[in-house]
Amino acid sequence: MEVYLDHSATTRCYEKVKEIVVKTMMEDYGNPSSLHRKGVEAEKYLKKTSETLAEILKVQEKEIFFTSGGTESNNWALTGAAMANHRWGNRIIISQIEHAAVAAPAAHLEELGFEVVRIPVDPRGVIRLDVLREALTPDTILVSVMYVNNEIGSLEPVAEIGEMVKEKCPHAYFHVDAIQAFGKYRIYPRRLQVDLLSASGHKIHGPKGIGFLYAGEKVRLHPLIFGGGQQNGMRSGTDNVSGIAGLGEAARISYERLEGKTEHMRAMKCRLAEGLSGLERIVIHGMPLEEGAPHILNASVLGIRSEVLLHALEDKGIYVSAGSACSSHKRGSSATLTAIGCSREELDSAIRFSLAEETTPEEIDYTLETLRSLVPVLRRYTRR
Amino acid sequence: MEVYLDHSATTRCYEKVKEIVVKTMMEDYGNPSSLHRKGVEAEKYLKKTSETLAEILKVQEKEIFFTSGGTESNNWALTGAAMANHRWGNRIIISQIEHAAVAAPAAHLEELGFEVVRIPVDPRGVIRLDVLREALTPDTILVSVMYVNNEIGSLEPVAEIGEMVKEKCPHAYFHVDAIQAFGKYRIYPRRLQVDLLSASGHKIHGPKGIGFLYAGEKVRLHPLIFGGGQQNGMRSGTDNVSGIAGLGEAARISYERLEGKTEHMRAMKCRLAEGLSGLERIVIHGMPLEEGAPHILNASVLGIRSEVLLHALEDKGIYVSAGSACSSHKRGSSATLTAIGCSREELDSAIRFSLAEETTPEEIDYTLETLRSLVPVLRRYTRR
Repeated sequence: MEVYLDHSATTRCYEKVKEIVVKTMMEDYGNPSSLHRKGVEAEKYLKKTSETLAEILKVQEKEIFFTSGGTESNNWALTGAAMANHRWGNRIIISQIEHAAVAAPAAHLEELGFEVVRIPVDPRGVIRLDVLREALTPDTILVSVMYVNNEIGSLEPVAEIGEMVKEKCPHAYFHVDAIQAFGKYRIYPRRLQVDLLSASGHKIHGPKGIGFLYAGEKVRLHPLIFGGGQQNGMRSGTDNVSGIAGLGEAARISYERLEGKTEHMRAMKCRLAEGLSGLERIVIHGMPLEEGAPHILNASVLGIRSEVLLHALEDKGIYVSAGSACSSHKRGSSATLTAIGCSREELDSAIRFSLAEETTPEEIDYTLETLRSLVPVLRRYTRR
Repeated sequence: MEVYLDHSATTRCYEKVKEIVVKTMMEDYGNPSSLHRKGVEAEKYLKKTSETLAEILKVQEKEIFFTSGGTESNNWALTGAAMANHRWGNRIIISQIEHAAVAAPAAHLEELGFEVVRIPVDPRGVIRLDVLREALTPDTILVSVMYVNNEIGSLEPVAEIGEMVKEKCPHAYFHVDAIQAFGKYRIYPRRLQVDLLSASGHKIHGPKGIGFLYAGEKVRLHPLIFGGGQQNGMRSGTDNVSGIAGLGEAARISYERLEGKTEHMRAMKCRLAEGLSGLERIVIHGMPLEEGAPHILNASVLGIRSEVLLHALEDKGIYVSAGSACSSHKRGSSATLTAIGCSREELDSAIRFSLAEETTPEEIDYTLETLRSLVPVLRRYTRR
């Protein structure tokens, strides 16, 4: 049996995503910048995806910009907003548990002279709103907090943050990294007072190499990539028609009967958590099961190093993640688990299970059975 | 009959490219950053494409970095090299006929305080080496010249420029935008003394949204996109496995019996040029047919505005380009045609035909026939 429980790292494409990608590679392969029919046909795919995304987010089509993925979206949001908003101040606020795609460009801006403040989280992985409130000084120009944490699935209070930012720092932009949340939650940037929002295709059964940035029409943003003037001059480069078409299709399908899908994921997560609790010395991280993201469960199997358990599970056809797994093979401790106060032992033994709509009870049960037979043996033989 | 003569704008994917893209979307869909087998399998595609490209360019695998396309490669090369090399000087040199993906980031660097010098070209579209030599002052840190011009197909003297740059400015990097040349010429960056070289997938029957930057191992380069540390920390973001696999396959096929393919393209170009000459008041731009790129022919059909002829041809199923067609629907005059000294009338009536290995004599003849019947009529009725 093969059980893929690493959907927060990446997903298999939907059948219909594949079909539209193939169609745009082989038939409607024109360049949307071309003036002839082949170009016009290709442009329709862009228009359609913009419409789909605008409808899902309840925003305007012109507020959607396509990028090469979540990392580019995050980099662009941070750098583009910081550069454009510089005259109002110098302070950028992020949380301590942001993905590297936010934390790293923030650190780069710090090197360039911006002040970066990192707000701590509570033991559930939720940003400390009291600390944030104090940090929102008049020279704050940008606040970036993720919607769902990629490692432990904690859900951040985006609406409260939006309100607080707009109240205390009217010039500041609020960016939300929604890469793990898009396709799992109904997200309405305007209602949340979110100015910039990042998402990615391959986390929602779309292609890799495509993502988008929502930027409210009044947001001043410098481009990150200059050139032929595509996307209203905001993001140049030949439009990735196949990626964009695939992203639109993936988003459309993800939001069809969304609640049914997320309920199913949550049921599978609870089934997994319940089974895990039957094993000894297990610590489940993050928010209570019903409150955190429906698809992410992070647990430390004390006494067994993450990689050892990961590879033992792999031998049985079960794929999970140690650490965030969006970071390239990096060793070193997880910033998120450190920030929520995990012990050394918990850090070293943390495993992330991430589910999808296609995850079945049989897969969960097989995973639990496998763990029940592996864990005691590994605990006995693993030297730590 | 449908005749696509806009291959410099974009191309249809090879069948084998489609197959590998589908395989990596549906079967080997793992994230190369994942530690388990699904990740390891996915990583093999990256390795394979790096090997293919390194073999084609005769460079090291670790000198190949994947990007979201030619525009990102050019932006990264210019910005990344300028930032990293700033301590040696402030001068950046480009030609007057660079693609917007070079000209626009150069203009952005100018706004940031760098000095940008734009070298003129001769009437054939070839950079003025005498002017370049004078411009190569000791504070020059970067020279960027394209290999093949995208509008008129002129071939730049890259080897001579490389030698000149290294002789006069040992600290300067030499970047080559090879987006229209890769897959048409055998290009060896080391022999040419090229430090940085950009190329794109979708110009060579690969997917859109993928490209690469060659950067010699000794080149200091700042990243443009920060995050999870993929690609040795130089370009973060989940690797676009499908795009990378498709790019590798497209490059491999393009370089199989390359000379046969380019000879065929050139024969088709000459056939087209010869036929065009039979029409009255035609001006063919660029280098002599045997010297310029094998796949690009740019001609002014005097007395007919470019868009009028483009749409008239479109009605007959023939797709060509007015202007560079990589620039998004932009009006305004072509920088290249202006730089080679075209008259207003020539500028307004220029059409680019761009061919591929699959272009047939029948397609060329049909295009010529169509032109022979259209042109006199359009000339009579078109008000200019």
